[in-house]
Amino acid sequence: MNPADAPARLPTGARDVLPTEAAELRDAEDALRRVLRLNGYREVRTPTLEYGEAIERAAARGVDEAYRLFDADGRVLVLRPDLTIPAARMIATRMADHPGPIRVFYTGSAFRLPQPGRPRLSEHRQAGAELVGATGPEADAELLELLCACLRAAGLERFRVAVGSAAVMNAALDAYMDGDDARRRLRAAAAARDHVAWAASARGLDPALGALPTRRGGRGVLEDVAREIPAAADACAALSRTLERLDGTPAADSVGVDLGIAHDRSYYDGVVLEAYAPGVGAPIARGGRYDALAGRFGAPRPAIGFGIELDPMHRALAAAVGPRPVARGAVVAGPGAHDAAQALRATGLPAVACADAGRAAALADVEGWRFLAVPHGDAYDVRDRATGRRFASIRLQEDLPSLP
Amino acid sequence: MNPADAPARLPTGARDVLPTEAAELRDAEDALRRVLRLNGYREVRTPTLEYGEAIERAAARGVDEAYRLFDADGRVLVLRPDLTIPAARMIATRMADHPGPIRVFYTGSAFRLPQPGRPRLSEHRQAGAELVGATGPEADAELLELLCACLRAAGLERFRVAVGSAAVMNAALDAYMDGDDARRRLRAAAAARDHVAWAASARGLDPALGALPTRRGGRGVLEDVAREIPAAADACAALSRTLERLDGTPAADSVGVDLGIAHDRSYYDGVVLEAYAPGVGAPIARGGRYDALAGRFGAPRPAIGFGIELDPMHRALAAAVGPRPVARGAVVAGPGAHDAAQALRATGLPAVACADAGRAAALADVEGWRFLAVPHGDAYDVRDRATGRRFASIRLQEDLPSLP
Repeated sequence: MNPADAPARLPTGARDVLPTEAAELRDAEDALRRVLRLNGYREVRTPTLEYGEAIERAAARGVDEAYRLFDADGRVLVLRPDLTIPAARMIATRMADHPGPIRVFYTGSAFRLPQPGRPRLSEHRQAGAELVGATGPEADAELLELLCACLRAAGLERFRVAVGSAAVMNAALDAYMDGDDARRRLRAAAAARDHVAWAASARGLDPALGALPTRRGGRGVLEDVAREIPAAADACAALSRTLERLDGTPAADSVGVDLGIAHDRSYYDGVVLEAYAPGVGAPIARGGRYDALAGRFGAPRPAIGFGIELDPMHRALAAAVGPRPVARGAVVAGPGAHDAAQALRATGLPAVACADAGRAAALADVEGWRFLAVPHGDAYDVRDRATGRRFASIRLQEDLPSLP
Repeated sequence: MNPADAPARLPTGARDVLPTEAAELRDAEDALRRVLRLNGYREVRTPTLEYGEAIERAAARGVDEAYRLFDADGRVLVLRPDLTIPAARMIATRMADHPGPIRVFYTGSAFRLPQPGRPRLSEHRQAGAELVGATGPEADAELLELLCACLRAAGLERFRVAVGSAAVMNAALDAYMDGDDARRRLRAAAAARDHVAWAASARGLDPALGALPTRRGGRGVLEDVAREIPAAADACAALSRTLERLDGTPAADSVGVDLGIAHDRSYYDGVVLEAYAPGVGAPIARGGRYDALAGRFGAPRPAIGFGIELDPMHRALAAAVGPRPVARGAVVAGPGAHDAAQALRATGLPAVACADAGRAAALADVEGWRFLAVPHGDAYDVRDRATGRRFASIRLQEDLPSLP
């Protein structure tokens, strides 16, 4: 029935992460967490399973693309398709007494059903931050600065944060388009970055509307659009004030305007953002302002947040940084390996004991440990895989941790 | 339909983790990860969703208590009810070329259906380690030492690791019991720690069998049982040799024999272990040797591992350590808060900017930040919530980080 010799496959969209990649992901996550904590954001966790009804309150489409199952009472459960909605639910129900602003972050997985003919991961690990109960340019600029600080801390130097505005787009659509259907069609075209479909739907209307999703650059773009689409002038000015606040900060060089950003999540209503890095087509982060979301859970509060997509961010890092140095650590061979390894660990150096010298060498090669130590009289001969150097008769605990 | 004023509840067995607890859990996880890395264990990740068939290969009961759903082709998917089985699957299929021994660890959630009338969490966060391709007392002792080092590193001082042997129990059952049903009944009684049911099933047989699950203590217990149940003598001697190897290590004082341990997971076949801490009824860790598991995925290799249950371990820590000190960090008030907070962060001190002094004080109180800094001329007045002291007119960046 289940023959052991048949390969044990993984479900579509699932994957294992092997040690080298797992260590890189962990280092990146740790770096993000340090920056988030340093900025006063506090970690929270929400469960993997939510009621479908809770997700539906925020984003009708969310449940369509979610893994669904039923609880013992027949209610629909979903594997959370998004981490912002559960965070908003938690803050509205569990932190309602907090005077605000609330700063929280989380790392966890979101799950989306695989799409036929469009291979993608079904489990997306994200690191997200939310600033709840604060509004205006200062709050928006805080999140943009924080996102840039996170990406730099993870090791990325060349990245772009593109900032648009759901408010600008909504004002333009309201000004020129009649009917919800037409607006929905344009919004879907924007979310899909389908400028041809957008232009087709906007044909015959003001050319400024047709060109809107292609408008990107510095703050000057916002002045131009404010002139061309007077109904959007206030929203353009608001975004401009946010970007002004970044002047003189390290984020200033990384952030630019892109009025074509429109997320397929329906809850964003102010600033929207996406981050990109060289070598990776997908956004490495997405986010925006969603002032109306918390109200759907009974405790209205303005909020802005972002989610960093850890797998695309890791691909960007791998493209930018290249392979990592040889793993710091030692494999110790010989009969005294147990105690020698333990002594090395006391100095902070990872160590593995392996009595058999032949197996110890193979282990160091396969797992990529830097040092191989083989007993030689009362001391050890050591091979340094990082430099190719060999050291004869050294005392492990004293000499090894201090090698450059 | 979904009125926003109805509370957004969570599914049975699910829970949110708020900042204070999340920070404690994170610190404990980080400490475990450091020790595991120091011992040469390398992190891996497996997906949350597995084919039910893969879990069933290893433990028929596993799928019964798992959350089940269907993929687009109608195949059964499960939310992994266990982390050892996916790790074994991954090692057998993705690390088959590794010469061994393989040392891996992981942190992640396992999921079990809520049981009617028996409230428990449905999502269990665990940190687990596996040593694959090594057998004998040295390997078993390595895992026991590692588990003790992990629990100490997390901050527990008073814990007990109880070690039993599936081999001893199997040998005793084979010697005295006829028929698989009778053996299964006894094993179920042992797994449930139901000594009354065990004694009832063993009535009329050798009294040594009836007393087996109550035998616990030092290594002397193993000598006694070896004498009373000769068929189990070899298995007793093997466990004794493992425990001997702990002599002189920090683990020696924490590890004891308990021949009543029998896990409800069917794949354990050698040493079995459970860890306990004062104030927590549930085991804070479980594990054992499962030499036959990898073979069910086509690549036989002996293996031993443990999983630390992070929620019970956290309860044990909270009982032993008590509340944590006030969070290191500052809330900075006033118009220059943004830049002053940024300067503090550069010294490594978490900081939050809050222009409004009244809100800043409330924020420091609610979130428990240690310092509240309010501008005073060119400098700041600081209140230290940890000590109750006040400092007048200090320079934040220079003076605050050095306060004891």
